[in-house]
Amino acid sequence: MSRAAAELQTHIDALFPICRSITGQGLRQTLGYIADKIPLRIWEVPTGTAVLDWEIPPEWNVRHAAIYTLAGDRVVDFSQHNLHLVQYSEPVDRIVSREELDTHLHSLPNQPDLIPYRTAYYRRTWGFCLSHRDRLALTDDAYRVVIVSTLEPGSLSYGECFLPGASSDEVLFSSHCCHPSLANDNLSAISVAIELARGLAGRTRRLSYRFLFMPGTIGAITWLHFNRDAADRVRHGVVLSCLGDSAPLTYKRSRRGDAMIDRYIGRLMQDAGLADRVRPFIPMGYDERQYCSPGFNLPVGCLMRSPPGSFPEYHTSADNPGFLRLQSLTDSLELLERLISILENDAIWVRTNPYGEPQLGRRGLYAQQDNHDPSHCPGFDQETLLWVLNLADGQHSSFDMAELSGKSFMSVVAASAALAEEGLLAPTGLITADASGA
Amino acid sequence: MSRAAAELQTHIDALFPICRSITGQGLRQTLGYIADKIPLRIWEVPTGTAVLDWEIPPEWNVRHAAIYTLAGDRVVDFSQHNLHLVQYSEPVDRIVSREELDTHLHSLPNQPDLIPYRTAYYRRTWGFCLSHRDRLALTDDAYRVVIVSTLEPGSLSYGECFLPGASSDEVLFSSHCCHPSLANDNLSAISVAIELARGLAGRTRRLSYRFLFMPGTIGAITWLHFNRDAADRVRHGVVLSCLGDSAPLTYKRSRRGDAMIDRYIGRLMQDAGLADRVRPFIPMGYDERQYCSPGFNLPVGCLMRSPPGSFPEYHTSADNPGFLRLQSLTDSLELLERLISILENDAIWVRTNPYGEPQLGRRGLYAQQDNHDPSHCPGFDQETLLWVLNLADGQHSSFDMAELSGKSFMSVVAASAALAEEGLLAPTGLITADASGA
Amino acid sequence: MSRAAAELQTHIDALFPICRSITGQGLRQTLGYIADKIPLRIWEVPTGTAVLDWEIPPEWNVRHAAIYTLAGDRVVDFSQHNLHLVQYSEPVDRIVSREELDTHLHSLPNQPDLIPYRTAYYRRTWGFCLSHRDRLALTDDAYRVVIVSTLEPGSLSYGECFLPGASSDEVLFSSHCCHPSLANDNLSAISVAIELARGLAGRTRRLSYRFLFMPGTIGAITWLHFNRDAADRVRHGVVLSCLGDSAPLTYKRSRRGDAMIDRYIGRLMQDAGLADRVRPFIPMGYDERQYCSPGFNLPVGCLMRSPPGSFPEYHTSADNPGFLRLQSLTDSLELLERLISILENDAIWVRTNPYGEPQLGRRGLYAQQDNHDPSHCPGFDQETLLWVLNLADGQHSSFDMAELSGKSFMSVVAASAALAEEGLLAPTGLITADASGA
Repeated sequence: MSRAAAELQTHIDALFPICRSITGQGLRQTLGYIADKIPLRIWEVPTGTAVLDWEIPPEWNVRHAAIYTLAGDRVVDFSQHNLHLVQYSEPVDRIVSREELDTHLHSLPNQPDLIPYRTAYYRRTWGFCLSHRDRLALTDDAYRVVIVSTLEPGSLSYGECFLPGASSDEVLFSSHCCHPSLANDNLSAISVAIELARGLAGRTRRLSYRFLFMPGTIGAITWLHFNRDAADRVRHGVVLSCLGDSAPLTYKRSRRGDAMIDRYIGRLMQDAGLADRVRPFIPMGYDERQYCSPGFNLPVGCLMRSPPGSFPEYHTSADNPGFLRLQSLTDSLELLERLISILENDAIWVRTNPYGEPQLGRRGLYAQQDNHDPSHCPGFDQETLLWVLNLADGQHSSFDMAELSGKSFMSVVAASAALAEEGLLAPTGLITADASGA
Repeated sequence: MSRAAAELQTHIDALFPICRSITGQGLRQTLGYIADKIPLRIWEVPTGTAVLDWEIPPEWNVRHAAIYTLAGDRVVDFSQHNLHLVQYSEPVDRIVSREELDTHLHSLPNQPDLIPYRTAYYRRTWGFCLSHRDRLALTDDAYRVVIVSTLEPGSLSYGECFLPGASSDEVLFSSHCCHPSLANDNLSAISVAIELARGLAGRTRRLSYRFLFMPGTIGAITWLHFNRDAADRVRHGVVLSCLGDSAPLTYKRSRRGDAMIDRYIGRLMQDAGLADRVRPFIPMGYDERQYCSPGFNLPVGCLMRSPPGSFPEYHTSADNPGFLRLQSLTDSLELLERLISILENDAIWVRTNPYGEPQLGRRGLYAQQDNHDPSHCPGFDQETLLWVLNLADGQHSSFDMAELSGKSFMSVVAASAALAEEGLLAPTGLITADASGA
Repeated sequence: MSRAAAELQTHIDALFPICRSITGQGLRQTLGYIADKIPLRIWEVPTGTAVLDWEIPPEWNVRHAAIYTLAGDRVVDFSQHNLHLVQYSEPVDRIVSREELDTHLHSLPNQPDLIPYRTAYYRRTWGFCLSHRDRLALTDDAYRVVIVSTLEPGSLSYGECFLPGASSDEVLFSSHCCHPSLANDNLSAISVAIELARGLAGRTRRLSYRFLFMPGTIGAITWLHFNRDAADRVRHGVVLSCLGDSAPLTYKRSRRGDAMIDRYIGRLMQDAGLADRVRPFIPMGYDERQYCSPGFNLPVGCLMRSPPGSFPEYHTSADNPGFLRLQSLTDSLELLERLISILENDAIWVRTNPYGEPQLGRRGLYAQQDNHDPSHCPGFDQETLLWVLNLADGQHSSFDMAELSGKSFMSVVAASAALAEEGLLAPTGLITADASGA
């Protein structure tokens, strides 16, 4: 197992038992774990704060929750599985008839052994989730339900890892981390994001990178509310989710559809034989819904394997660490590393003298007959050199050149560097990016 | 039979016997019939009036026309069929040799039982049309031909039904009504236009509608000559012709090719499984030739079933009421009613606060889990709501939203109304239309 | 054999024996031959002159070159075949070991009977080319090599045939003429260019035409260096090469990809059933590399049959007159003549009165029923007339009209002339062309 694979596995094993929600101690504990691995600033936003059209909800914490027979036996116990309790259940301690209890139970008749995942963030109610098999066994006339939870003024927590680069142009990676014990959704993406950030933290960077670990929807809305300036600097962004299941990667384009991030990942997907798994933007999904709301319209796509709701384990107790494939996690990380390689190297070079071809021979850049590679220049061939010289008109980025020539991006980068060394190309100071904003 | 079907049948039966031409009493009588059904202003433009590059021709009327044997038997008799006489035949009363007569006869050797339809509006001549079978029976050495017609200063008549709406932006429907006893060409379209106008006259209208009933070519040229201002206000237009035969509907795009009317009808055709019957503009056909001449270049397409010349009954005595299918007429009317539903409802709405998604839950617009429809909002689902919220950036019309989301146009309209009710969307004052003019 | 075919054959036979290079007497002699056929100005540019990024090299001439056995027998003799000597070989007269000799020999093990073509313009070295079979027969321990060549200050020669037209807008045809005894590459194109220029010289011309006969690369660079003004006037251009082999024509688009020349030749290729032989621009090939360098970016494509390197006879002694097909040469010439017919006739006409259709009948341009052709107007049909009237809005050229209508270009030209005769169309003074320059 590679070092990266081992780290990914460690993160998932460590985080799976924690009961996260959109607020509360479990979320805070998760962010604390991440902060041990990468430079992370943890923000706390008080209950009641207005954020865009929303308001930070009360903080939810649970000490205990169970259903008892009147004889005192626990038949459903939150301490056995985090999914047993509907998120944001209010406190209760009552004897209820089976009929009343039934209106507070959630199970999956078609998947009778699985516990579903349910939430009630913005409604005052309570409820339990259990396997349908266990539900059918509840035949007593009455039960005692006990939920020892708090719904009180507190704060919403989120984590931000900012890695400054030579340019203030930013790349955004965003992962939701509000789900309790669900592995693919979204510990897979959280783990990949940690490793991606760790790698970036240890190198020089041309661009600045921002990793967000936040509760879904309300977290993104909170960040956007307080960070209009940073949002304006986002040139490329990717929401990461469900990166550990066995399905091939799926890329959902940004709302713009033709942002550079869409072209970059589109190319990586094509190179991986996954062109048919590039999907258009739809306003259902993860936090790209907020980044791509019309007022922001950021160039942010979403990378995942199985899209939400498309796999039977989705939002059930079957989405556990055993459901993940380590190879899926490492492959996801590798594609993102290739993306960063493009982001860090794509640039617009321009010919210092654009008239005619330069004489390559006297500069040692001319491949002799019967030899396609300029002898002193590993990493690219003669044709790549000619493509770069022809397209370096200030209108084409290195990425464009690779697309048009069919040559690899890195060989275009190498050829450009060799030509720049000879004074035949000059940097324009432009790196390729979409302006943000609507 | 529906009320609409009965009305359509009544119009056709009433109008078929009349001998129309591009001027004259038959045309006037036809317009009189229409004026009994819908508010119609009838215009008379005097012979000799210059209209664009043309001139209003003399008015043509016929009292009697026949070919007699020298023994006095009528062998061809205009009173038996309006098609027997070449339109605009000048008066004659002569005995002619069979050879001379033959140069004035028109028949169809390949359709020996049918009488063809022929005109000579702008040449001074005379002629008779007859079945080829009857022609072959004319074996005498000489015949007497009598045509009691007048070609005298008079006027060209046309009818205009204008239905004002809240906006001065206009929708134009144009049907030629110069053909004598031909049912599909064009009593079918005249009847459909009458019913469409009658329906619109009885409702409130956002847009203004103008229905023109005019002789082909010279009528459209006359209207365009005198109505440059109205032409400038045309935002959408459709020439209606041959809507009663058994062929599926055909839509010929406007010269612009991508006018809103082309997109609207293109979508209706696609929904009807008729995408392959949408055709590009060509400068042959009906009065779209004039509306789409380069100086006007109006967004006017043409809706028909069989295109001109493409069916064997075209311009023959076989194009009679028995050739029509009532279902074809009512289907044509229904598609046009669906078009009007789009025209009246398409609008550009914009988010009042475009940043992030609004919190739908507190507004009763959030679908609970396991339920795709917001409970209090029939007519659309949660996804439609999200699409509208995401696309309401002032760049997308309701029609665009339906196209992009795959949701039905009317569900987008309903969702937009619900969001506007909650103050989340505001009207822009823009209705979607193409500017007219070249 | 047609006159054109006979002339083409004569040129090839006359030019094949000459030993051309990028400078020297063979090149001068070739230009002299061309100057006997068409008006040609021959330029001499001195050695050492700076041209763009390059410098005119020394002039190379050879009096004698051979390899002798030590007994004095000639085993390789330049007087037997021009390809035996590596171009730009420096003088030498030495006895060399077989091992040393071997590093100066070039042969083709996979084509053992053919002599390859090799050059060393910008390196000081010497070498011989020979069949692999002959090379294997060189088994002596030592040989005497003698090359009596000069590499001295002189000049680079090129020829320019300028045929002025009514407009100063220019059409460029460019052929490289630096190769020694190779027939397809490029005597085929030189011959076709001579005949094309001869035809144009004898007619009135709307556009100006410039034919360049120049050494590859350094010739184009030299011309571009000294002719920035003329380059700015180039509206259409074609590099001609390898037009005599048996492959179908190939057209390589200009760097712009959508220049008028690309559309014109694209159409001619499509009409010839060769749409699949139209290729995108790549920066490898002939002198389009220089014309299409980013600073110039001229609308210059390349017409050829087999692309460079794609046929086994390429750059070997098998590319001799026997390899050519006369039919290929005459077909190439004919396509270029059709191109000139388009270039000379494409124009933008505009309706004098663009409102409605004009009344064609009173102008004798109306086709009577059952007759598709206006009686007095051969060369086009009624539909073509209607297309021209509809599209003559100042936005569509005759070529555009032909493309949109599906009518032949020449029928559109004829219909436009007939309409102009009647005062219905007026010339705009615009002929269709791309502006040059980056």
